[in-house]
Order: sequence, then structure tokens, then C-alpha cells
Amino acid sequence: MQQNGDMRIGILTSGGDAPGLNAVIRGAVLTGSQTGTADFVGFRDGWRGLVEEDLLPLGRHEVKGISKQGGTIIGTSRTNPFEGIGGVDRVNEVMKRNGIDAIMAIGGEGTLAAAKRLTDAGVPIVGVPKTVDNDLGATDYSFGFDTAVGIATDAMDRLRTTGDSHGRCMVAEVMGRHVGWIALHSGMAAGAHVILIPERKTSFAQITEWVTSAKDRGRAPLVVVAEGFALDNMSDAHSERGLDTFGRPRLGGIGEMIAPMIEDATGIETRATTLGHIQRGGTPSAFDRVLATRLGMAALQCALDENWGHMVALQRTNIVSVPFAEALGKLNTVPDDRYDEARVLFG
Amino acid sequence: MQQNGDMRIGILTSGGDAPGLNAVIRGAVLTGSQTGTADFVGFRDGWRGLVEEDLLPLGRHEVKGISKQGGTIIGTSRTNPFEGIGGVDRVNEVMKRNGIDAIMAIGGEGTLAAAKRLTDAGVPIVGVPKTVDNDLGATDYSFGFDTAVGIATDAMDRLRTTGDSHGRCMVAEVMGRHVGWIALHSGMAAGAHVILIPERKTSFAQITEWVTSAKDRGRAPLVVVAEGFALDNMSDAHSERGLDTFGRPRLGGIGEMIAPMIEDATGIETRATTLGHIQRGGTPSAFDRVLATRLGMAALQCALDENWGHMVALQRTNIVSVPFAEALGKLNTVPDDRYDEARVLFG
Amino acid sequence: MQQNGDMRIGILTSGGDAPGLNAVIRGAVLTGSQTGTADFVGFRDGWRGLVEEDLLPLGRHEVKGISKQGGTIIGTSRTNPFEGIGGVDRVNEVMKRNGIDAIMAIGGEGTLAAAKRLTDAGVPIVGVPKTVDNDLGATDYSFGFDTAVGIATDAMDRLRTTGDSHGRCMVAEVMGRHVGWIALHSGMAAGAHVILIPERKTSFAQITEWVTSAKDRGRAPLVVVAEGFALDNMSDAHSERGLDTFGRPRLGGIGEMIAPMIEDATGIETRATTLGHIQRGGTPSAFDRVLATRLGMAALQCALDENWGHMVALQRTNIVSVPFAEALGKLNTVPDDRYDEARVLFG
Amino acid sequence: MQQNGDMRIGILTSGGDAPGLNAVIRGAVLTGSQTGTADFVGFRDGWRGLVEEDLLPLGRHEVKGISKQGGTIIGTSRTNPFEGIGGVDRVNEVMKRNGIDAIMAIGGEGTLAAAKRLTDAGVPIVGVPKTVDNDLGATDYSFGFDTAVGIATDAMDRLRTTGDSHGRCMVAEVMGRHVGWIALHSGMAAGAHVILIPERKTSFAQITEWVTSAKDRGRAPLVVVAEGFALDNMSDAHSERGLDTFGRPRLGGIGEMIAPMIEDATGIETRATTLGHIQRGGTPSAFDRVLATRLGMAALQCALDENWGHMVALQRTNIVSVPFAEALGKLNTVPDDRYDEARVLFG
Repeated sequence: MQQNGDMRIGILTSGGDAPGLNAVIRGAVLTGSQTGTADFVGFRDGWRGLVEEDLLPLGRHEVKGISKQGGTIIGTSRTNPFEGIGGVDRVNEVMKRNGIDAIMAIGGEGTLAAAKRLTDAGVPIVGVPKTVDNDLGATDYSFGFDTAVGIATDAMDRLRTTGDSHGRCMVAEVMGRHVGWIALHSGMAAGAHVILIPERKTSFAQITEWVTSAKDRGRAPLVVVAEGFALDNMSDAHSERGLDTFGRPRLGGIGEMIAPMIEDATGIETRATTLGHIQRGGTPSAFDRVLATRLGMAALQCALDENWGHMVALQRTNIVSVPFAEALGKLNTVPDDRYDEARVLFG
Repeated sequence: MQQNGDMRIGILTSGGDAPGLNAVIRGAVLTGSQTGTADFVGFRDGWRGLVEEDLLPLGRHEVKGISKQGGTIIGTSRTNPFEGIGGVDRVNEVMKRNGIDAIMAIGGEGTLAAAKRLTDAGVPIVGVPKTVDNDLGATDYSFGFDTAVGIATDAMDRLRTTGDSHGRCMVAEVMGRHVGWIALHSGMAAGAHVILIPERKTSFAQITEWVTSAKDRGRAPLVVVAEGFALDNMSDAHSERGLDTFGRPRLGGIGEMIAPMIEDATGIETRATTLGHIQRGGTPSAFDRVLATRLGMAALQCALDENWGHMVALQRTNIVSVPFAEALGKLNTVPDDRYDEARVLFG
Repeated sequence: MQQNGDMRIGILTSGGDAPGLNAVIRGAVLTGSQTGTADFVGFRDGWRGLVEEDLLPLGRHEVKGISKQGGTIIGTSRTNPFEGIGGVDRVNEVMKRNGIDAIMAIGGEGTLAAAKRLTDAGVPIVGVPKTVDNDLGATDYSFGFDTAVGIATDAMDRLRTTGDSHGRCMVAEVMGRHVGWIALHSGMAAGAHVILIPERKTSFAQITEWVTSAKDRGRAPLVVVAEGFALDNMSDAHSERGLDTFGRPRLGGIGEMIAPMIEDATGIETRATTLGHIQRGGTPSAFDRVLATRLGMAALQCALDENWGHMVALQRTNIVSVPFAEALGKLNTVPDDRYDEARVLFG
Repeated sequence: MQQNGDMRIGILTSGGDAPGLNAVIRGAVLTGSQTGTADFVGFRDGWRGLVEEDLLPLGRHEVKGISKQGGTIIGTSRTNPFEGIGGVDRVNEVMKRNGIDAIMAIGGEGTLAAAKRLTDAGVPIVGVPKTVDNDLGATDYSFGFDTAVGIATDAMDRLRTTGDSHGRCMVAEVMGRHVGWIALHSGMAAGAHVILIPERKTSFAQITEWVTSAKDRGRAPLVVVAEGFALDNMSDAHSERGLDTFGRPRLGGIGEMIAPMIEDATGIETRATTLGHIQRGGTPSAFDRVLATRLGMAALQCALDENWGHMVALQRTNIVSVPFAEALGKLNTVPDDRYDEARVLFG
């Protein structure tokens, strides 16, 4: 770790929480303290704390033992730094008044886009990509994803024994608004008979064929569906499938919507479970703790190297730094060959 | 274990599945085999397998390693043995034709009521109480309950970190159609700020006061609600609270119904999670495996002792046998002093 | 909860740590705060903090979120309050100088014996029984025991797959210096083929017969042994069995001692694992959190009721209070019928 | 998946077991069945089953639900295929007599070296690398490693609360005979104050300085040591440190050896725990299930492509195939920069 003298860094976590945020913070703060290269303050609740000048101290004591805690000790929100009283001048003013030399922004697409805009305007920022859905490019995996997949898989292992006992089809809806990585990995780990992701069209006829085929072989069919899979993803979905018996749009997520459709079409009793928020909370997996800790350490080095406008990323087993632009604007979708690979095991 | 010569017992699991069913089966079958006192056949899918004469062999080999598996290897259903082709004569006929001397019925209120009716008509039956909700009397705890409470608690630990990071109120809906035991125990274990159970009325004003009080102390409020808690349980609930913005009845469970009401009333962002089927599936806890194994062993002894019309039950650390009637007809509800005890920690 | 005016209570945790200690502390402190009946200080590291006047504040803030943390936030030690500068006068002096009206002592046999001696000399004390081994009388279960059994069972589930893959006999040594409760429950939960506990003599010939019988049926034998099971518990153990090939006493625990003996006698490759300290650390189970929270709340009520010389205990699903003497001096051993029950499943 | 007609493949698992072996088997067998490209038989207990012609059928039914089971359903052993009645001729003879076209060997360094020797002699073999220690080259990670790190991290989380409560230094010995990957990752995840790996020399004075520094900051020091770390790895270790108080060589692993040394040198009470076999058994993590399933599928494709002498490997998020030679002969050790990175957080 290079010694660049004393740098004061303001750190923020923005957007939805993810298991590993605290490990990133601890990795950066502890390294700054151990090497004497930097000290830290936290901005409370993401960009809000920056533009509203709501700061908290972040020293060795504050980060003690937090790498195994879910969430973020400095809070998070979806505030945009350019809205309200925000903007480049306001950011510079708050930084100057608090002696802050640089910002470490931990967040997803929106956060990094704002960070890029600020960097382009001269604000010294480094970034750490955060997305439980694993939808950012440039990095092999994002922290939080492994924990989410583990929780979803564990839940499906439980659903299977219930399905087996009752001879039911179980539908599990997992996170993934735009990409199907959690569905793909948890479904593959749990031995799902159908995996439905936003990236791919699948006919409803094909879905029921997979379900029926599994049932015919004596299995309780397990259908995993990403929340972002839409009725439109089913090429043959009649519009009325989205309507309930009163002719009004079905409420609830895609899992609850598709379960009665499967039951109607196959005659197999079908139940839906929406895993929801439990997928993004709680103790991070060891994999995510190591990844997040290393990202935090590398982001500090990135700042010490004055690599502004760069974010850190995992490539193979290395942490590298890449320009914001490289990660932005191109969703990390599930490629066709990965879905086709999983699909071989369906049915 | 007393040696009563060779008895042939037909075993069935009926109603919703519960973690520990397989351990009951294994405990009975293995003990019969080790002591040479009894051998077993299984009726597939509860009473259905009995009245439809759908049997499977249940020997030492079939029960190998199953005590840690969720669900039931012999299947379950909600079939009533008195409906369709069923009835006392049919039961006696199937038993006679298959050389079956006695029935071991593992199930809840409905199953045991049917078992009692058959016993009263002379069919030799012993019972094992099964209820994840812990709603049967005569037994301190039922197997499956501890596992469900553990899963719910683990989920709430996860929800809390998300709530803390976002400053949100989190609502967790857990099982418990008629009684609030799972809500009470998981809520107490997770440090909930509000626990809502079917047995108790609570005004909506009181609920929002607890939520606001927790928020004011810097906590992210956690509300645990049993699925059987109804809008009517809130003395001051206006009927329109059950309507959505289009004036139509809200769909979904009580958790999803109450979350927007709390958000509207307190101004605190609120999110609901319905834990659903994951609470009753998967690997049973060690507590449930021990309890279920002992219940299975004791139920066999009950049969060998020709204690027909009795079921086994846990009292302190002992397994005892009690007449069916003792467990039936009186729901094991959460007593007021237990709820008041938990309530001290709210707010 | 009765209102007895303001009482100031000093709380201490003594002896080995146990999952649930923090939940006891939180239950008592939070209840005192919510009801306005009592406030608390902590004595650091058990009796040491009392006699050395090493106190820390214990308010609502300090106990926030601790019920799911293992260990004890106020520290523990094996200090005897009658040794060194300790004694009744010293205890009274420290209490008086700090305005402390009563002591809540959380500990095992030794701690409660010291508490009794102090109470007999007029010091107002209430107790909470703590023993991971579950070796105290008067209470159906102690907190920490359920967590330990769960951890041991989970470890054995893992050992079994290794044993099965290699055709090995696996020996797992678990806690239990004087009693075999952890061995009995975890062994029963994991489907062990042999369970060895301090309370019972078992011939080595019988042990190898069970191991061989399991192997002959195609199982990988699992032997669970409590750390307090001694070579002397084996009626036919030749003294040289305790010697290694150099004729010197074998080091290590009973698990490591007995594994090569089994391998020598049966020809089955045998491996030992000593679970050790992982059994008593980390997140308590939901069962233990509920039990410990309730014990803490009840212990406060015990103090408010001035029930000095009493400790709280679990009987069925109720928390009761019993005189210290009732729990002391009689080890809660595994009764013969419980061991014989488990034994039916061996071999 | 390319259709190459019907190929009959014999599959074997060799060496120590690893979580994920069953998922590899299932991935290959199920894909062969679904695509109609291959069917499988298993050789029991690794090369032993091949040379002793001990085969078992491996169809769709046999691999049902096994991806979440630890160990290997076809058994494993350390048999060398060139010893005893083995050898190229014997292998060819058994393959011919059973209509086996190719072998899929799942194993570590030794297994793959034997596979290479057989391939060089004309036997058609593909390989899947297996090493819980993660010590093989050419692949970013091996299946089983993530599960082991997770189990070790979970154990350390437990050890920490005990250490904190008693003010003790806790020493955890983890797997890793030749490389320190498990120690590095689990230590980093658990926030260890010292990590000792076979690849690096560390003076005993430095170790005690780290331990003391952590203690001085109010932490309970956590020392993680790989089983392959030797006394010789400590540049200043006096030979007598390896002797007990009777002057005889200390028994037990490095963890039990180093704990009393640390206690003697620092005066801090120190306890050792050897995690042992629990690290390699039981349910694989979701990460390992996905990785192992994909490796099994890719190994089948490798065989269909007649890529003899190749093994499959993970590189970034892709499964590639590489010649055996590429993975053999060069231990995948922890590079200096990775250890130095972790080391920044020590002390």
C-alpha cells in the first residue's frame, strides 16, 4: 500500500442495501488507519448526507466487527445529488468546509452515473459497484449476489420438501428486475425444472410442458422466476392471463400471477412464494465478505493513486480498476449460452 | 421396550407437511425392527392411501437417513377417510386384506378427529399430533414448530438489517391461522416492536404508536403479524382500511394489507414480506428431530400396549400418552399472560 | 409486571459463556426500562467486577440488538467472590457505594453456590441458571443447550457425508463434562450408531459390536462421545488402551483416544473430530433467545418481589422461581430410561 | 450440446471427498440423459472400482436430488490404478468388457496425474479437478473450496464471541496442507488478527506482536492457521517450542501446538480449536453446486468432443477445457500480494 500522505475521504452507500456494504467500508477505513494514508467520514444515507452535510465519524472503532453485519452502518437512500439543494457547487462546498479530499461512492448504475457526472465536473471520486442482482458490467461478480443466491437456494431446498410431500408444483419468485442471474444460479443450485428470466422469451406452452414432464417423472416441479420476467416474455400469453376472475389486473408479483395459470393449465396444485427482502439482508456469505473487503481496500488505493472516475472490479481472482464508463450503460445480462446450458437440465 | 410379539402397523401422515414427519416415521419403524415387535407399511398420501389401498413398504432400508429430511416420504393429503369410498367398513376391509393390525395416524385436529371417530367404531388407532402452528392441546410443543420459529427468526434477522439501512418499517407475516405461537416466539427472538396474533385485539392507533416510538428511538420498526390476525382484530379499524385506492378489497395476506396502512398513518416507509411455505419445509431443527423421533418410538409402544384412541404428547421432558379427546376441540391458544409478557418489550 | 418503585440492580455473568447470556441481560434491562421499575449496572467479568468495583452502565442503548449476539457484553470469568479482596463485607461495601440494591447473578453450579452463600449472609441476590451442558436441576432446559445441540447436530450431518463417501467410522466428541445431554440429543438428532455418556458404563466390546453392525448394514458408523466419558466407563477397558504406541498416556480428548482403538479392533478406518469451543459461541437459536429473554424478565420480577435466594427456571412452558438450594448439589444427569430409549436405535 | 451419438462413460471420484462431487456427477449424467448423447456407469470407490470391476448403474434415477448432498454417492478411495492388479491393460480390459468408451475422473493432483499417465497410454479420459484446498492450477476456484471457507468462517464467528466474553485469544486450525487459501479467505472473512499459511515465513515475535496489539485495542485476538503451517515457518522458532513440558514432541496439529506458545509468550489465555473434517462434509454452498454442475456438464461435452487428456476449469465465469499438464505439477499457492493484502488488516 503506497503512502501518499494523509487524505480525508468521505464515503457513502447509495441505492438498495446489499450484504457486504459494511465490509467495503471496514476494508477501506481499516486500511487507511493501519497504513496511515487516509482517514474517513461517512455521509449519512447516501448522497443525501453529502448535500445536506450530514456527516458521521468513521474510524477504527466504528468499523469494529461490522464485516459480518448486513446492511450499511452509514445508511442509504435513493437521493440524487443533483436534485434539490444538490449540484456540483454544493458538493464542492460541503467537501471544502469539512476538509474532504475525495469521495468513495458505493452504489449501482444510478449512483455511479451520478458519480461520473460529478467526476466529469472535477469532483475527485472513486467508485465501488454494488448490485445484488449482479447487473453491472466490468466485474465478474458484485458483492451481495452470492449471499442472495445462497438465501434463495436455501429457501428452495425448503420449498422442495413441501412440494414433494404434497405432490405440488412450487413457484419461487426471486430478485432480478432486469437480469436473471439470481434466478439462474439459485435455480441451477436447487435443481429447478423451469427458470424464467427477463432476458428470454419462453412460451407458456413450453413452461407447462416442463412442469408436466417433471411431474410425470415423479418429481414435484420447481419453477424459479425472476421478478422482472413479464407476461410479455411469454410469446403465447393471452392478455387475459393477467386478469383475475373479476376481469381486473392481477396484483402481486409475477410468481403469484403465474402460479394459478400453471395450476389451471396442468391440473397440478401450484403454490407461489415471493422471497422478497430476505434475499438482501443479514449476514453476508464468506465469499461476499472477502470480495467486499478487497474492493474497499482497492478503492482506497484507487483514491490514493488519484484514479478519479474509476471504480474497482473483480476479474478472475484480481481486483482491478476500470473507468466508470466501462461499467455503465450496458446491463450485465445472462448470455444465451448460459441460459441454454441451464435449460438442458429442465423438464 | 416391551415385546408384544409381531404387530403389523399401517402408518399415515395427513394434512399440511411439517418438519419432523420423517423422523416420527423413522423412530417408529426402526424401533419396531430393532426390537422385533412390529413391522410397518405406509399409506400413501394420508387417508387416501388407506381408503384407496395404496400402500408402500416401510422397512429399515426405506427410513435410512430420513430424520433430517423435511416433508414426508409417504406423502400427505387432506383426504377425509369418511368421504367417497371411505368409511369404517372400507378401512376394516383394507386392513384385513393387508394383514394390518393397527394404524398410526400422524396429523392435526382434523386427522385426529377422524382417527377418534374410527377408534370409537372399533378401529385400533394410535395418534401423533402434528401442527407447525403449535395449536393442539395436551402437548407442550409439537414437532415442526421449533423449525418454523427458527426459520422465521432467521428471516427477521435479515429483514432488520435492510430496515436499519433504509430507515424503514418492516412487516413480516408468519404462519398461524388460529393461534399466534410462531409470531410470538419468532417476534420475541428477533426483538420485534409489534407482534400481532389472532387471539388478541389491538387498536391500530396502538400499533402505529409502537411503530413511531421505535422509530423515534432510532430503531427500524419490526412488525410481526400472524396470518390469522384479521382487520377485525383492530378495534378501531375502519372498514375502508381493507380497501385499496380503487375501493376494491385488498388482496394478499394481512402483512401486505397492513404495511401501506402503517406507511400512510406514520409516514414511515414500510415494506411487507410474507414468509409463506419456506417456514414448513426443509431440514428440521435438532430439537424437532429429537422430539419427533421420541414421539414415533412412543407411539409404537402405545400401539404395542394396545392403548387405542391415545396419542403421544410432550410434557416437560417426557413423552406421555393421552386420549384423543384431551387434545381435541380446544385450540392451544397463546394465553394472555404470555402475550402481555412479550408486549412489555414492544414500542 | 408489578411496579415496586425504582430498584438499582447489578448484573453479572460468571463461568463459561453460553449463547443466550446477552438475551437474559437485554430481557431484564429492557423490562426495567419499559416499566420504570429498575435500572441496571453491569459488573465486568463476573464476580471480579463486583469485588474489584469494575462497573459499566447498562441502559436501553447498551442492550440494543444484543439478543442475537453470542457471548456476554459484560464479560465473564471464573473469579470466586470470596477469594482475594472479596467476601461479604466487600460485596456490601461496593453495593452501598454504588447505590446497588440487588444482584442478578447468571451462572452455573459454582456461581449459584457462591450466590447462595452471599444470600445466606444477607446479600439480596436472584439467580439465572446457566449451563450449556444442561446439568442443573429444577429447570427443564437451560439456555445455550439448544444452540449447542444444534451446532453439534449440524457438524455431525457434515461428518456423515464424509464417512459415507470413504466408508469410515466417524467419532465426534461433544461437550458434557459430567452429563451426556448434548451427546444424547445431538446423537439422536444425527442418527448416531453409538452414544457414549459419562453417566453410563458401556463395554468396549459392545461399542465395537455396534460399530461393526452399522458397517455391516452399509452405513458409515457415527460414534458420539461426551468429553466426560472416561476410559473407566468401559468396563472391559484394559489400562494399556490409554497408552500410545510409545507406552505414554494418550493426549487429547476421549474422542481422539477412542478412535484408534475402534480402528484397531474393527479394522474400519476411523477419524475423530473434537467440536470444542464452536459449540458454545455465536448466534443463539430462536429457542434459546426466547427462553433467555423470558428468564431475564422473570429474574427482574423475582428481584422486584424481593424473592432473594431464588433463581428462575423453565418448567413446561412456564418460567417459575425456585430456591437456589433446589438447583444445587444434584447434577441433572441423563436418566437411565432416556439413555435406554436412545440405545434402541444404536447398532 | 452437440449430439455425438451414444457414448458410454465410466465416472469415478478419487481422493478426499469434497462438497460438490455429487453435483458434478448429476450434471454429467442428467445432461447425457436429457440430450441422449451418453449414458453412465459409476466405478465404486475411485480407481478401485475400475481395476476391481466394481460398477454401479448411474442413471437419471440414481442422481435425483443429489446435488445438495455432500460426499459422493459412488464412494471414493486413494487407490492407485497402476498398483496391484491395475495397469493400462487391466483398465482397457474392464472398459472393453463393460462397453465403456471413456472415463471421467474427478480428483486432485494424484488422480489427474494417474489419468494423464493412462491417457498417454491411449485410454480416453477427461478430468474434473477436485481440491477443497484450492491447490490446483488452471482453474480460478475448485468446487468444495467455497463451502469449506463458509464453514470455517461460520465457526470463527462463533469462536469470536467466546473469545470476546472471556478475553481470550482463539486459535482456529483450518485445512490446507500445502496452500493457505482456506486460511486466507476464512481469516479475512472473519476479521482475523493473524493468518498463518504454509507459503510464508512469519516470525513468532511478529505473531505475538499482532496478538498483543489486538488485545491492547480491546479485541479478543483471532489466529487462523492452516494445518500445513509448520514450526519451521517461524524463522525464530526455537526447536524446544515443539516439545511439551516433558521434553517430548507435542502431539496434535499446529493449532494445538501454537496455542500454549502464544499463551506463554503473551500471558493471554489462549484456546485452540481444530475444525477438521466438518470443513469437507455436508450440503455444498450454492456457489459450489452451480460450479460443480457446470463442470460436470462441460466434462461430458469434453468427452463428446473427444478432448482426451483434458480437464475442465473455471476461468472468470466460463468453463473452459485445458490439458491435464497445465494443471499438474504447479501448486496453486497464495501469491505474496494476496497475503500482503490480508496482512494490512492484521494486528
